[in-house]
Amino acid sequence: MELDMDLNRSVPQLDWAPHLASRTAGMKSSAIRELLKLTQQPDIISLAGGMPAPGLFPLREIEEACRHIIRENGPQAMQYSATEGYEPLKEYLAATVHKYGVPAVPGNVLLTSGSQQALDLVGKIFIDPGDYVLTGGPTYLGAFQAWGAYGARYHTIPLDDNGMIVDQVEHAYKKVLTDSGKPPKFIYVLPNFHNPAGTTMPQERRQQLAEIATKLDLAVIEDDPYGELRYEGEDIPPICTLIPERTIYLGTFSKTMAPGLRLGWIVCPEVLMSRFVQAKQGADLHTGTFAQYVANDICQRGLLKPHIKKLRVAYKERRDTMLDALAELWPAGCNWTRPQGGLFLWARVPEPIDTKAFLNEVAIKEKVAYVPGVSFYPNQDGGHNAMRLNFSYCPPDEIVEGIRRLGVALKKALGD
Amino acid sequence: MELDMDLNRSVPQLDWAPHLASRTAGMKSSAIRELLKLTQQPDIISLAGGMPAPGLFPLREIEEACRHIIRENGPQAMQYSATEGYEPLKEYLAATVHKYGVPAVPGNVLLTSGSQQALDLVGKIFIDPGDYVLTGGPTYLGAFQAWGAYGARYHTIPLDDNGMIVDQVEHAYKKVLTDSGKPPKFIYVLPNFHNPAGTTMPQERRQQLAEIATKLDLAVIEDDPYGELRYEGEDIPPICTLIPERTIYLGTFSKTMAPGLRLGWIVCPEVLMSRFVQAKQGADLHTGTFAQYVANDICQRGLLKPHIKKLRVAYKERRDTMLDALAELWPAGCNWTRPQGGLFLWARVPEPIDTKAFLNEVAIKEKVAYVPGVSFYPNQDGGHNAMRLNFSYCPPDEIVEGIRRLGVALKKALGD
Repeated sequence: MELDMDLNRSVPQLDWAPHLASRTAGMKSSAIRELLKLTQQPDIISLAGGMPAPGLFPLREIEEACRHIIRENGPQAMQYSATEGYEPLKEYLAATVHKYGVPAVPGNVLLTSGSQQALDLVGKIFIDPGDYVLTGGPTYLGAFQAWGAYGARYHTIPLDDNGMIVDQVEHAYKKVLTDSGKPPKFIYVLPNFHNPAGTTMPQERRQQLAEIATKLDLAVIEDDPYGELRYEGEDIPPICTLIPERTIYLGTFSKTMAPGLRLGWIVCPEVLMSRFVQAKQGADLHTGTFAQYVANDICQRGLLKPHIKKLRVAYKERRDTMLDALAELWPAGCNWTRPQGGLFLWARVPEPIDTKAFLNEVAIKEKVAYVPGVSFYPNQDGGHNAMRLNFSYCPPDEIVEGIRRLGVALKKALGD
Repeated sequence: MELDMDLNRSVPQLDWAPHLASRTAGMKSSAIRELLKLTQQPDIISLAGGMPAPGLFPLREIEEACRHIIRENGPQAMQYSATEGYEPLKEYLAATVHKYGVPAVPGNVLLTSGSQQALDLVGKIFIDPGDYVLTGGPTYLGAFQAWGAYGARYHTIPLDDNGMIVDQVEHAYKKVLTDSGKPPKFIYVLPNFHNPAGTTMPQERRQQLAEIATKLDLAVIEDDPYGELRYEGEDIPPICTLIPERTIYLGTFSKTMAPGLRLGWIVCPEVLMSRFVQAKQGADLHTGTFAQYVANDICQRGLLKPHIKKLRVAYKERRDTMLDALAELWPAGCNWTRPQGGLFLWARVPEPIDTKAFLNEVAIKEKVAYVPGVSFYPNQDGGHNAMRLNFSYCPPDEIVEGIRRLGVALKKALGD
């Protein structure tokens, strides 16, 4: 039979618009993922993405794990498996989160296809069209990208150097209740090394948030992708240790092992688990069996913790390099957060500079990229003079060069 | 700090019901996945699940691919990657579907986390609450499990030995339009080796469906998980070769390589691709990078086709074994489909036997399991005297024994 090799060129084009669900109006492409395409030109120094250092993946450990698993458990590792996740890995995760004081048994753990799926499942089981959720302003953009598909609206609460200003939560809750007639469905927080702000919420503020959430009967989504990547100071127990009955805690191997495995997890009250399991069955049946076996092998052989130690040393150096370069090479009037861990810091530039326009008109031409602050405001109502800078992906010399290029361009724009 | 090791026992239980989205009312656990838990007792012969034979996974090829990939492309294979999928694998998939006459370029292909995710994304971009979709009665239950979360309603069209009776599509369309005031959003079909019915739609009927869909401006979801697993007769080009502009074609490696990798794909008009990509970004960012590299390595080295040949030989033997055992061991008054490929056949038993009750009250006690027919009717209005029997998972001797146990029990129930 005759084949038509390009259906776009030569077959009739359908008008799909009347076929689509109305929720597609709330679905947008991630600014970062679109930007990443731009910045894949090899001569651009990208401080934009949130990628781990490609040179630091535990390749030897993963290769060994693949061999072990295929030889010892091949048929099981390649087969369909439980929606909840691989039992030994659930046990490991339940046990390790105890180091943070998260009280959990395997029945509280659900493996997800990366943390992004956990956010999607949260949207699926909680958000009715028009519902408000409370988030930081700024906040992780993948969260509101996921929830846009479920018709969420957002009320944002500003951050200071200690993360979300939880003093304002009760007022925000009441404002939503007054405006929409319904309470917000949950509050979304990133207490450790916030993406994008780089801030960490101190113990007292977590306690305060727990008390407010309890008083208001507010569910808490606690996203903790970077908790293990602390470069100074002491670990602070997550909010779910304070109010486990109302917290949905999200963890991931993407930053500590490898994002290409797509492994995250939810820790939540068991009464909610059947809802998440139903949502996940419909979404993708289960998380990759082989990837779970590989991760479990690495964890059970005790290889993850030494690897994380190596990551901490390398990323601390990169963070320090970026902080030093900013202090040395950027003009007066700029300021930035000093993250205790994680992958990002948040920099503010003087008022006349709009960081979105500056990226497109200046920075890309100077071969350096960042993410404009406005991308992290679900209502696009802030961050116009701010940017997120990533320090995990580029090696130190490129970080210095990237900060230098931005510094030169900023000085020029400011007429220094 | 004091840790509470079981948050379910000893912390306050929240009433989550008022926090949940109303769509959770439409979300149900899969009957099969719940049943699979029951049948995991080692002495039960399970003809219930849809699992590939665990002894036939291409373990040596996968182990070699893991080693190659990690040594040659480790950093890329472990990193975040494009939502659309890994470009060489998209090229391979676009090229191989040409064998079926699917006209496609890489820009028409989206990698998904198994075919189940493709069904979920279809629901996300097409279904508004209350929308009708047309499906077979029976049809794949994972589809209506996915779409229940988006508020779908179902109008089913019966099947005969040649698959969906497409003569009835126009009437069904008009009935939906009259009853709900809106046309159905799409029609969902499984033309090859239907799950659960085991039927195959002949060329003329595909042509007829293409003409009706065009006349009615109806989108077609064509699910083809088993197309490569044909045991007799000639391949029939899929419906998307006839009406590529209105067909969304779903493929998967779950049956030909390994379901534990969670790799499926969508082939669709490029004008729809941005919608699917947005939906997938929010859902899980991208499909597992490592799994895609492994599958691509196996495909590009030409190892998949010989493996599929081996599968065809083994599964043909199992199908023939089951057909022979049914003819020999089951009572009069039963009948069944004779699948030309795939993993399943559909058996009907005499009227007094309700297969759901018979499973729970008789078959499980006799240590044999199947899926009751009613599980495959989205409105639970059929299949009461039918069951789905899988012949891919058990080796031939267990298939004979499972069919024998069912035959003895059926004869007893029928008073033979």
